[in-house]
Amino acid sequence: MIVPHFEGRTLTKGHGAGNDFILVPDFDAAIDISADDVAAVCDRHKGIGADGLIRVVRTEALARREGIAVDDPSVEWFMDYRNADGSVAEMCGNGVRVFVHYLRIQGIISLAAGQSVAVATRGGTKRVSFDGTLYTVDMGPYELGGRVSVEIPNVGTREGCAVAMPNPHVVVRVSEEELAAADFHRPPVYDPHPIHGTNLELVSPGGVAHMRVLERGVGETLACGTGTCAVAVALRASDGSGDGQVEIESPGGHLSVRLADGRAYLTGPAVLVAEFSLLGIAGL
Amino acid sequence: MIVPHFEGRTLTKGHGAGNDFILVPDFDAAIDISADDVAAVCDRHKGIGADGLIRVVRTEALARREGIAVDDPSVEWFMDYRNADGSVAEMCGNGVRVFVHYLRIQGIISLAAGQSVAVATRGGTKRVSFDGTLYTVDMGPYELGGRVSVEIPNVGTREGCAVAMPNPHVVVRVSEEELAAADFHRPPVYDPHPIHGTNLELVSPGGVAHMRVLERGVGETLACGTGTCAVAVALRASDGSGDGQVEIESPGGHLSVRLADGRAYLTGPAVLVAEFSLLGIAGL
Repeated sequence: MIVPHFEGRTLTKGHGAGNDFILVPDFDAAIDISADDVAAVCDRHKGIGADGLIRVVRTEALARREGIAVDDPSVEWFMDYRNADGSVAEMCGNGVRVFVHYLRIQGIISLAAGQSVAVATRGGTKRVSFDGTLYTVDMGPYELGGRVSVEIPNVGTREGCAVAMPNPHVVVRVSEEELAAADFHRPPVYDPHPIHGTNLELVSPGGVAHMRVLERGVGETLACGTGTCAVAVALRASDGSGDGQVEIESPGGHLSVRLADGRAYLTGPAVLVAEFSLLGIAGL
Repeated sequence: MIVPHFEGRTLTKGHGAGNDFILVPDFDAAIDISADDVAAVCDRHKGIGADGLIRVVRTEALARREGIAVDDPSVEWFMDYRNADGSVAEMCGNGVRVFVHYLRIQGIISLAAGQSVAVATRGGTKRVSFDGTLYTVDMGPYELGGRVSVEIPNVGTREGCAVAMPNPHVVVRVSEEELAAADFHRPPVYDPHPIHGTNLELVSPGGVAHMRVLERGVGETLACGTGTCAVAVALRASDGSGDGQVEIESPGGHLSVRLADGRAYLTGPAVLVAEFSLLGIAGL
């Protein structure tokens, strides 16, 4: 069985620091994408496989056809992001870099080094700038929360720090050995217990901090945009160093976070891996 | 960085019961495929992602260019199978079905319902027959081994049965609850200890037996051709029922095994998911 809505379209797979996405061009919002379509294509064994699917669509067409509310209708391109299970997501810090890279490489927008572009998302308009190699996203304001005790399987109980990006994170400093030893196949236990769940970041500080992330409802991923920002916020808060730049290595690659005036700016790479056309996806 | 050897080629992703492969057409053995090339393309986040890569090559060209020994030079097509880490493998029971399906769908061979075709592999020539929907592979002779005690994480210590397909397997009967509960992220402990390692299958018997497989050096997979055959051998041996057919459900899908005259015949589906061309794979 083919996914009928994607028939005849050229899809693209891309990734930012190992966080991978399938880009579906649908400029005029003509496709009615179902959760099953997304799950089928994002299935890593029976589909192409990705952490999420990004529909590339004109803001105006999406607003007109699906009545979606946007904070700035003059922003031409909308990143319609879906998680691998088909659920709708507001924003993705690694995904929006890949989205802009796709627009640039395909020649859909003109974006020279030193320029920036606004992208509409369900989480509001995001500005993405390009330095000739890497992309920087204004991830918006952050908020430092209270202390949380975390029982980390195979490491022990440690104290961490809550950060809202605005999605919930708990950041825990660990040693390099503990970072490697933590068993993310077993669930951590939090005190106080976060009612809506939380993402967990473990970080071993240094000139380049090393981190791992356990994403809420997903499991361990190679990189997480908001999680990387949360790590930077927690590290600089505990150092008392305030604004500035933090270099962070995730399992999927290197990302940089700059904190300034209460906002986080995430810088990293974007890669297009392959273009493909679907033949058939069975067993769904 | 692009994988230069694959530039300009149309690759295909396919799967058999969730065991997935990237097919690379190279009829004249013109590509010198490195382990790094294979690992880059099979990387699930920064590449396309698959359990293995299959080069579709003429036996005669491979023998002439790479001096590979084949038991029957008259067999036209050779399945050059590589594991996701780039290492060379002899055979793959799910892969060879997808290989033949690819040849048939692409029109490279003519194969009507009721016909069969021989495929050359490093593990010898394999005959694959087509019934109009499913493919059956003669997996060759099997050998029943001795009893092995296995400590299965989250289940307990159970007695299993060794089977050579000829690669090593240990098959353990468990309840449906134990099948779900077994923790394959932690290593099982065998007594006696298999010096060259072993694949482990847990099976809950029934009209349709349910199995899970832990592949040696890989971890849990959605399906395993030789593992499915090993389960059939162990089930019928312990029932004393000898030759006959066994229906088996893996997490990736349904497979059937027929045992006859000391040989195992594996029947299952093959699906082509997508055609793609590589754009660039970075970070390797």
